[in-house]
Amino acid sequence: MRLEILPVPGIGDVTEGDDLAALIAAAAPWLRDGDVLVVTSKIVSKAEGRLVDVPADGPERLAARDAALDRETARVVATRGATRIVQTHHGFVMASAGIDASNVDKTRLVLLPEDPDASARALRAALREQHRLDVAVIISDTMGRPWRNGLTDVALGVAGMPAIRDHRGEIDPYGNELQLTQLAVVDELAGAGELIKGKCDQVPVAVVRGYPGVAGAPDGEGARTLVRDAELDLFSLGTAEARAAGFRDAATLADGTGPAPADPMAVDRALAAVAEVVTPGTVFTHVTDEEVRAGLVASVDGWPERATGLVLGSPPTPIDQADLVRFGADLQRLRTALAAEGVPSTLLPPPTGSTASAALAL
Amino acid sequence: MRLEILPVPGIGDVTEGDDLAALIAAAAPWLRDGDVLVVTSKIVSKAEGRLVDVPADGPERLAARDAALDRETARVVATRGATRIVQTHHGFVMASAGIDASNVDKTRLVLLPEDPDASARALRAALREQHRLDVAVIISDTMGRPWRNGLTDVALGVAGMPAIRDHRGEIDPYGNELQLTQLAVVDELAGAGELIKGKCDQVPVAVVRGYPGVAGAPDGEGARTLVRDAELDLFSLGTAEARAAGFRDAATLADGTGPAPADPMAVDRALAAVAEVVTPGTVFTHVTDEEVRAGLVASVDGWPERATGLVLGSPPTPIDQADLVRFGADLQRLRTALAAEGVPSTLLPPPTGSTASAALAL
Repeated sequence: MRLEILPVPGIGDVTEGDDLAALIAAAAPWLRDGDVLVVTSKIVSKAEGRLVDVPADGPERLAARDAALDRETARVVATRGATRIVQTHHGFVMASAGIDASNVDKTRLVLLPEDPDASARALRAALREQHRLDVAVIISDTMGRPWRNGLTDVALGVAGMPAIRDHRGEIDPYGNELQLTQLAVVDELAGAGELIKGKCDQVPVAVVRGYPGVAGAPDGEGARTLVRDAELDLFSLGTAEARAAGFRDAATLADGTGPAPADPMAVDRALAAVAEVVTPGTVFTHVTDEEVRAGLVASVDGWPERATGLVLGSPPTPIDQADLVRFGADLQRLRTALAAEGVPSTLLPPPTGSTASAALAL
Repeated sequence: MRLEILPVPGIGDVTEGDDLAALIAAAAPWLRDGDVLVVTSKIVSKAEGRLVDVPADGPERLAARDAALDRETARVVATRGATRIVQTHHGFVMASAGIDASNVDKTRLVLLPEDPDASARALRAALREQHRLDVAVIISDTMGRPWRNGLTDVALGVAGMPAIRDHRGEIDPYGNELQLTQLAVVDELAGAGELIKGKCDQVPVAVVRGYPGVAGAPDGEGARTLVRDAELDLFSLGTAEARAAGFRDAATLADGTGPAPADPMAVDRALAAVAEVVTPGTVFTHVTDEEVRAGLVASVDGWPERATGLVLGSPPTPIDQADLVRFGADLQRLRTALAAEGVPSTLLPPPTGSTASAALAL
């Protein structure tokens, strides 16, 4: 297999209502069945009228840009300074929700297409029905990414090929079954297209020729299949945002007990974490002996039925009112450290007759 | 400009000590000055002996894989179940530190090259000096990414071209200056190369022909320029890990006072955040009147010199020992909520003669 990547220059300015299929077919009369068109999302947005008017400059411009960003944002992922990485309504995670001020008049901003997969299907259908071309269409845009500098073009919308080429289950030459190999080929195709487009070259469409399996293929499920489910997303919030959420959740920490006995190593780690910061002389004891624990909990007022662990706490002695207050703060520190380890807890009065001043049910 | 992407089949098995330049030149006698070679990192690792022996199966195999992962890991970024996303010593953030069990005998694992940029420079030099070819070399590998399903090939090492094509400062046709356009072209080239390599096709090298500016170029700074500085990385920890870090930081919250008077709205937000979870009847009062505050703090034992804010706290009445302990826990909740708003605090006994039971210095 070999591929060619070809530019489609000469499309010129695109305005609302333009027939993109006609513009592309006219600029590239050499298109063939089986070609993959990589179409910059900006000309799709322009043809679809996905633009907003804004002041050309001044503080009103910033306010208008912020308002547009708010409307396009489904969820804020991370911010720092002027950078706002958000998840759009489509599910894409992008700086500024992909809103673009370049390559457009200063009084307008270009939004992402509302439904890039639908736009890709429509363009593919128009090329097929009005220009008798059986091609795949990828609608591309430029995105940054965590951990790696620089931007690359990726696919926002796809029609005419699967977004992912799946090798799972194949056997390599050594007899190993491939486990983790789902290649996002439409992102690689979008990036390949970008290589010949440049950013000021007025080449909004690239053609990849030679990719197998395109002619005669169905529209497929589109680029939406590239959006990772929130459940499986390990980076749904930026690090600073998630850390701050941890603080807020610690402040409002609820009582609870674990679904299973607390991992003794987790409890030990929590105890170690607070050892340096609690009032000197404060003693926390994780009661691990089941018989001893059973005897103690029998007398604890309000012991939760499902609790399977016990920590006793004693402040330093002798003790006055201020010391008791500090001891309560230290207990809250320990509860927070336990929560960091995934161990829920409930604060209770101590067992009757015990020298401890408080008990935590785990 | 137009590009071609060409496969280099016929390289066959690569073993330690192999002369990669010779293997490539023999398999692709059609190579020309100005070509960009995209070389799969696996054959570089094999030639360099970057492999470890492991048992072919059984629990010892898993233990050996984990030990290899630990050695290759500089920092754990995020984990869930069997997935471990780590930062390697090079700075790359990858699942399993890029360690690969596919396309190799079952008793071996392939590690990433130790210094992929150096490997790229060496291969480029060998092609130039021994085969009279003036080409760029990209060493590529397959990576996943947050928020988007599927994997793509990216550049681990580069010699002979800049990793990033920089458009900053250019003016678009509408007179806008481009601000945010640094394209990671070597990642796009790596992805383009992957399109013709496949995963079982035994095509470990792809050639991109037609990319401008390659012949006669210096080695350049390599792919290390793609590694984002930790300072600028908004996703240095997975969301769950960062949230847990927030919990741990809350548990070990230090005393402190702010560099400036606390923002009253921030204090209000913190008070509101804990209002529902503190013991009913607990009262926290933010003393904002400067004269009143001055009078009160004059009698607070240990009031920090730089503190500029005061919150008084009173538990519900009447009060017993257990209530004082709970009150201390509630104060710690408030201190945590204040910290979530960026307001440091210090827990102190109350002003002399006040009916409050505790004071927070902000």
